[in-house]
Amino acid sequence: MIGDPLPTEKLEGQLLPKHLALPIFASDPLSSVAYAPQELLMILLIGGTAFLVLAPWIAAAVVVLLIVVVASYRQLIKAYPSGGGDYEVASRNLGEKAGVVVAAALLVDYILTVAVSVASGVDNIISAIPELNPFRVELAVGFVVVLAAINLRGVREASKAFAVPTYLFIASIAVMVIVALVRTALGDAPVAESAGFSVHGESLTAAAFVLLLLRSFASGCAALTGVEAISNGVPAFRRPKVTNAQRTLVAMGGIAIVLFSGLTVVALITGVQYAERACDLIGWDDCATSPQRSLIAQIAASTFGNNTIPFFIIQATTAAVLLLAANTAFNGFPLLGSVLARDGYAPKALASRGDRLIFSNGVLALSAVAIVLLIGAQANVTTLIQLYIIGVFISFTLGQIGMVRHWLRQVREGSATPGAIWRGLSINALGAFMTASVLVIVTITKFVHGAWIVFVVMAILILLMIGVNRYYRDVDREIAADATTVFGASGDHAIVLVGRMSKPVLKALDYAIAARHESIEAVHVSIDDAASDTLLDQWAAHNITVPMRILASPYRDISMPLIKYIKQHRADHGAEVVTVYLPEYIVGHWWETVLHNHKARRIRHKLMLVHGVVVALVPWLLDSSDLIYGRRSRPLPGQDRRGEPVRPPLRAPKAPADANSRNRSTTRRD
Amino acid sequence: MIGDPLPTEKLEGQLLPKHLALPIFASDPLSSVAYAPQELLMILLIGGTAFLVLAPWIAAAVVVLLIVVVASYRQLIKAYPSGGGDYEVASRNLGEKAGVVVAAALLVDYILTVAVSVASGVDNIISAIPELNPFRVELAVGFVVVLAAINLRGVREASKAFAVPTYLFIASIAVMVIVALVRTALGDAPVAESAGFSVHGESLTAAAFVLLLLRSFASGCAALTGVEAISNGVPAFRRPKVTNAQRTLVAMGGIAIVLFSGLTVVALITGVQYAERACDLIGWDDCATSPQRSLIAQIAASTFGNNTIPFFIIQATTAAVLLLAANTAFNGFPLLGSVLARDGYAPKALASRGDRLIFSNGVLALSAVAIVLLIGAQANVTTLIQLYIIGVFISFTLGQIGMVRHWLRQVREGSATPGAIWRGLSINALGAFMTASVLVIVTITKFVHGAWIVFVVMAILILLMIGVNRYYRDVDREIAADATTVFGASGDHAIVLVGRMSKPVLKALDYAIAARHESIEAVHVSIDDAASDTLLDQWAAHNITVPMRILASPYRDISMPLIKYIKQHRADHGAEVVTVYLPEYIVGHWWETVLHNHKARRIRHKLMLVHGVVVALVPWLLDSSDLIYGRRSRPLPGQDRRGEPVRPPLRAPKAPADANSRNRSTTRRD
Repeated sequence: MIGDPLPTEKLEGQLLPKHLALPIFASDPLSSVAYAPQELLMILLIGGTAFLVLAPWIAAAVVVLLIVVVASYRQLIKAYPSGGGDYEVASRNLGEKAGVVVAAALLVDYILTVAVSVASGVDNIISAIPELNPFRVELAVGFVVVLAAINLRGVREASKAFAVPTYLFIASIAVMVIVALVRTALGDAPVAESAGFSVHGESLTAAAFVLLLLRSFASGCAALTGVEAISNGVPAFRRPKVTNAQRTLVAMGGIAIVLFSGLTVVALITGVQYAERACDLIGWDDCATSPQRSLIAQIAASTFGNNTIPFFIIQATTAAVLLLAANTAFNGFPLLGSVLARDGYAPKALASRGDRLIFSNGVLALSAVAIVLLIGAQANVTTLIQLYIIGVFISFTLGQIGMVRHWLRQVREGSATPGAIWRGLSINALGAFMTASVLVIVTITKFVHGAWIVFVVMAILILLMIGVNRYYRDVDREIAADATTVFGASGDHAIVLVGRMSKPVLKALDYAIAARHESIEAVHVSIDDAASDTLLDQWAAHNITVPMRILASPYRDISMPLIKYIKQHRADHGAEVVTVYLPEYIVGHWWETVLHNHKARRIRHKLMLVHGVVVALVPWLLDSSDLIYGRRSRPLPGQDRRGEPVRPPLRAPKAPADANSRNRSTTRRD
Repeated sequence: MIGDPLPTEKLEGQLLPKHLALPIFASDPLSSVAYAPQELLMILLIGGTAFLVLAPWIAAAVVVLLIVVVASYRQLIKAYPSGGGDYEVASRNLGEKAGVVVAAALLVDYILTVAVSVASGVDNIISAIPELNPFRVELAVGFVVVLAAINLRGVREASKAFAVPTYLFIASIAVMVIVALVRTALGDAPVAESAGFSVHGESLTAAAFVLLLLRSFASGCAALTGVEAISNGVPAFRRPKVTNAQRTLVAMGGIAIVLFSGLTVVALITGVQYAERACDLIGWDDCATSPQRSLIAQIAASTFGNNTIPFFIIQATTAAVLLLAANTAFNGFPLLGSVLARDGYAPKALASRGDRLIFSNGVLALSAVAIVLLIGAQANVTTLIQLYIIGVFISFTLGQIGMVRHWLRQVREGSATPGAIWRGLSINALGAFMTASVLVIVTITKFVHGAWIVFVVMAILILLMIGVNRYYRDVDREIAADATTVFGASGDHAIVLVGRMSKPVLKALDYAIAARHESIEAVHVSIDDAASDTLLDQWAAHNITVPMRILASPYRDISMPLIKYIKQHRADHGAEVVTVYLPEYIVGHWWETVLHNHKARRIRHKLMLVHGVVVALVPWLLDSSDLIYGRRSRPLPGQDRRGEPVRPPLRAPKAPADANSRNRSTTRRD
C-alpha cells in the first residue's frame, strides 16, 4: 500500500559489504597519511636537518600506537556493537559527564576533519597546479560549499563512486612507495626537489629537545584520526556484523600502517625538506613567491618525474580521498546527533532522523564553522593541525578507560571466559595508558599553538548538552502520568470556522458533521458586513442545516472574538471540550507556503492557548500538492553509516482521477 | 474577558490629532529640503558659477510644481479617503496594470527614501564633525541597522518623541533663514566659506544648456518626495478625517515651500558653491582630504558662525529629521504591503497585519537592500539621488491621470456638483500634465546616471505581483464552492496516537472520549518492544477502557505504519472520517521550539496527505508557556499611519493557581 516495503532480506542487502564499508569508513583515517608524515618531519626540521635521523623512531612510535589503538577498538566493537562507540562506552562505564565530554570532543573533531582535510586537499591540488596558489583560501571555502551542497541535496555514500577514490589512493600510493624502494634498491634512488635545501637548526636545551621530539610525535599522531569511525558504524555491516567490522578495522589499520611507514621511509630516502615557513629553507630562492609542495607531491615528482601522468594521478587521488574524508564529517555529525538525541543531550528531533530541515541546519552549521576556521587559518594545514587530534585523543582515552572499567566489571560478574576478559583487559589497559599519555603530550605541545580554542568550544558544547538534558528531564517530570492524574472532560461542542464559502470550508463542515458532535455550529467572524451577508446568502443557498453564528470584530481580528465566544460558551454550557475545525491547505511548492495558511496558523496558535479547545485540522490538497507524491525521498547524511535503508517515498495508493477527489470523501450524495 | 477591549471613543482617541499627524507624515517631505536645494545648485554649477543666476527661476518652477501637486492631492484625498492613495486611484480608474506599476514604483521609492535620507543625514553629521568623514559608509550602514532594530522591536511612531525633531527642524531652519535675511537687510549679509571658490564651466551647446537646466530642475524635484504620504494615511486622522488630512497636507506644503525657497535664496545670498566633485572648486586646497560641507551646514556656519551652538542645533535637527524620514519608509512599506495583499498582489499574510514574523522579514529585506545601495554608492547623496524620485513621479503621474479619469466619469454620471467636478478636473489635469512632464524630464536626465536600475527592479516587482495575483486567482477558482459541490462523509473513527504514557497523551485521550466518536482506539507504533510492553502495563494500571492497538514498525518510523493502518481501516470500514488525536506542546521560550514537537509535526504533515483524515491537536501547555500570557503585544510598523489601535495582549482570564490546571478540564473524577 505505502511505497514498497522492503522485505528483511532486501534490508540486509542494503547493508554494507566489507568492500564498500572499507572505503566509507577508511577515507578519513587513510587520508590522514597525506599530512601526518609531512607534519611529523616538518616539526623535526625545526631542530635542523640533522634531526631527521630521529624520524624513523618517531614514526615507529606512531605505528606502535596505531597498532594498540586498532587492537583496543577490536575489543570495543565486540563489547559494544550497537554503534555508540566511545560515547556509549564512556557514558555507560564512566558516567554521564564522561560521555558528554566524549561527545563534545567528537563534535569538535568533525569540524576539524572538514577543515584539515579540505586544507590538505587544496594543498595537494596546488602542489600539482602551482598557478592556483593565490586562490588557496577561495578553493578551500569553495570545496566546503560544494560538500555542503552535496549533503544538503542528499547523496548515497554507499555507492561505487564513493569507493573508487579510496581504492585508487591506496593503490597509487602503494605503487609509488614500491617504485621508489625498487629504484633505491637498484641504486637509482629518487631525489626530491627540496633535497638540496637545508635548515639551520637552533641550538636547543635538553628540555627543548625533548619537547620538539614530543611535538613531532604529536603531529604524527594525526595519522590516527578516524580510526574510531568503524566503532560508530557497526550496525551498517552485514552479518556477522562484529566479525566483519573487526576485519575491516584490522584491514584499515594494516593499510594505514603500510602507507604511513612507506611514505615516511621514502620521504627520508628522497630527502624531502619541508619547513614550517618556506623561507626557513636555505638554498631556495623562490620561497617568497612559490608555494612549498606537499610531501606527497615531492615524492611523486621525484619518483615518477615532475608533471608526468603518474604524478598527476597521485595528486588527484590524494585530493579526492581528502575531500571524501571531509565528507565523512558531514555524515558522522548527524549520526552522533541522533545518538545524543536518543539519550536526551540534543534536541529529540535529531533522534528520529527524518527531518531534512534539521539535518540541513546541521550541515550548514558544520560548514559555516569549518569555513570560519579555514579563513582564519588561511587554509594552512600546519595551523589547523594544531587544533586537531585533541578531540580524537580525548575520545580515545575516555573510551579505553571505559573499556577497562567494562572488563573489571566482567571480572566481578564473571560473565565472560577468563581468557577473553584478561586479554581484553590488558589490551584496553595498554590502550588507555598510551592514548592518555599521547593526550597529555598533545595537550602540552599544542595548547599555546591554538589548542586552547578547542577546550573553550568543548566547554560550551558540554554546557549546552547538559542544559538540554536537564530541560528534557524537567519536562518529563512535568508530564509524567501519576496515580492522581485523572482527566474528566464532559460535553462536546464543535465549531467550524468559516471565512468565506469555499470547498475547503465545506469539506471541514462535512467532516465535522460526520464526527457527530453533541452540538455543532458554524462561526464566522465578520470584518466586512457585505462579505458576511454574501456568506449568509450562500449558506442558505447551499441548504446547509448547521446554524451559522456571526461574530462582530471591531478590530478586524479573527482570533480574539472567536476566543471570547468560546470562553463565553464554556462559561454557559459547562466545561465542554470545544473542537474547532480549521481547513488547512496542503501545497506542493515550497514557495506556496509563503502564500497560504498564515492566518490559519496564527488563529490556531491562539486557540491552542484556550482552555478545553481542540483544533481539528482538515486538510485541503491543492492541485500542486500532487508534487509531494512524486517527490523522491532523498538519502540523509550518515544514513549509510548507520545501516538504515533509504525510506521509500510515501505514495498515494493510486493516481486519483481528478485532484479534488483526494479532498472528497468517497461517497457523494446529491 | 480578553485583554481590555477598547470602547469606540477610546479607539477614536488613538487616532492622530493634526499636531501629531503633521510630524509623522511630514518628516519625509520636509526633510527633502535638506538636499533638494543643494542638488539643484550643484547641477547648475556644472555649467559654471555664472549659471547660478538661473537658480531662482528653477527653484520657482519646483515651487509651482509643489503647489500643483499639493492641490492635486487635496482632490485625491477627498475622492479616495480610504488610504489607498495613488495605488487605489490608478487601479480603480486605469486598471490593474497601472495599479501594479504604482505599487512597484512606491516599493522602490521606500528603499530609496531609506538610502537617500540616511546618506544625507550622515552627510550633515559629518558637516558638523568632519572627523567622522572616514566612517561615512559605516555610519550610514549603522543607522540603517539601528532603524531596522527599532522597527523589529516595535515602536509607536505617534509619540511625542517622534514629533519633536520635525518641529525643531522647521523652527530652526525658519529662524536661520530669517536671521540671514535680516542680516542681509541690515547690510551684513552672511558669506559662506565656499563663496570665494569658483567653478570653471565648460562651454555648452544649446542642447547641453537646456539639458543642464532640466537636470537641475529634476534634482530640485527631490523636494516633492513624500508629499503623497498623507493620501495613504487618511484613516489615521481624527474626524472629520478628510478635512483634517487636507489641512495637514496644505500646512505641510506651505512649510515645505517656505523652507525650500528660503534655503535657496539664502544659499544664493551667502554664495555657497557646491560642486559634484569637491576638487572642481577652484581655490579650495584641501579638496582631496576634507569633505565638502552640506549646503545647510555652510549656511548655518555663515549665518550663526562656525561651530557655534545654533550651528550644531541646525545640524542635529537636520540629521534627526532625515533619520525620521528614513523611518517613515519602514512604516510605509508594510502599509502598502497590506493594501497589496488585500487585493491579492502580495502574500495574504500581509493583509491581516498580525504576523510579526512577516513584518520582520519586510523590515530585514528593506534594510538589506538599502545597505547594499548605501555601500554601492559609498553613501554619496548625489549618486543615490540619481535613482530617486523616478518612482515618486511614476506614482504621481498615474495617480493624477487616474483622478482625471475619475472626474470624467463624474461628468458622465453627474454624481457631484458641476463646479466641484470642473475644479477637480482642471486641477488634476494640470497635475497630471506637469507630473508627466517632470517624469519624462527626470527619466531623460537620470536614466544613464543609474536610473535604469530602478526600471529593472520595478519590472521584476511587477512580474512578481502579477504572478502572485494569478496564483491566488487560480486557487480561488479551484476551491470555489459550486452547486455540484456536495461532500458526504459517513462514519466516524477516532485514533489517539500514544507514544508513551504521559499527561499530554492522557489529556488527548480524555478529549477524544469526550467527543464521543462512534468508535475510538489508542494506537501505539512500536519501535522498541520493551517500551511497548511497559506502555501496555501502564495502560492496564490506569484502568483505561479504550483499547490499545500496537503497530509494528520495522524501520523505526511512526507515520508509515500508522498511515498504512488508517488506510486498511478505511478499506475495511467504508469511507469513515478518521480523527487522529495528537498532543502538541505549547512552549514559552523561542528556543524550546527547537526541543519539541518536531516528530509530531512530521507525523501531522504526513497524516494530512491521507484520505479522510482529520488531525486533532490537543494542546499541552508546559509550565514555561506562562510566559506567553505575560508577553506584551508590541506595535507593528505602519500601525499609527493606518489608524489601528495597538492590539491588547491576549491574556488568560485569571492567573491559574497551578500551571497544569490550564491543561486539565475543570471537572475531576477519581
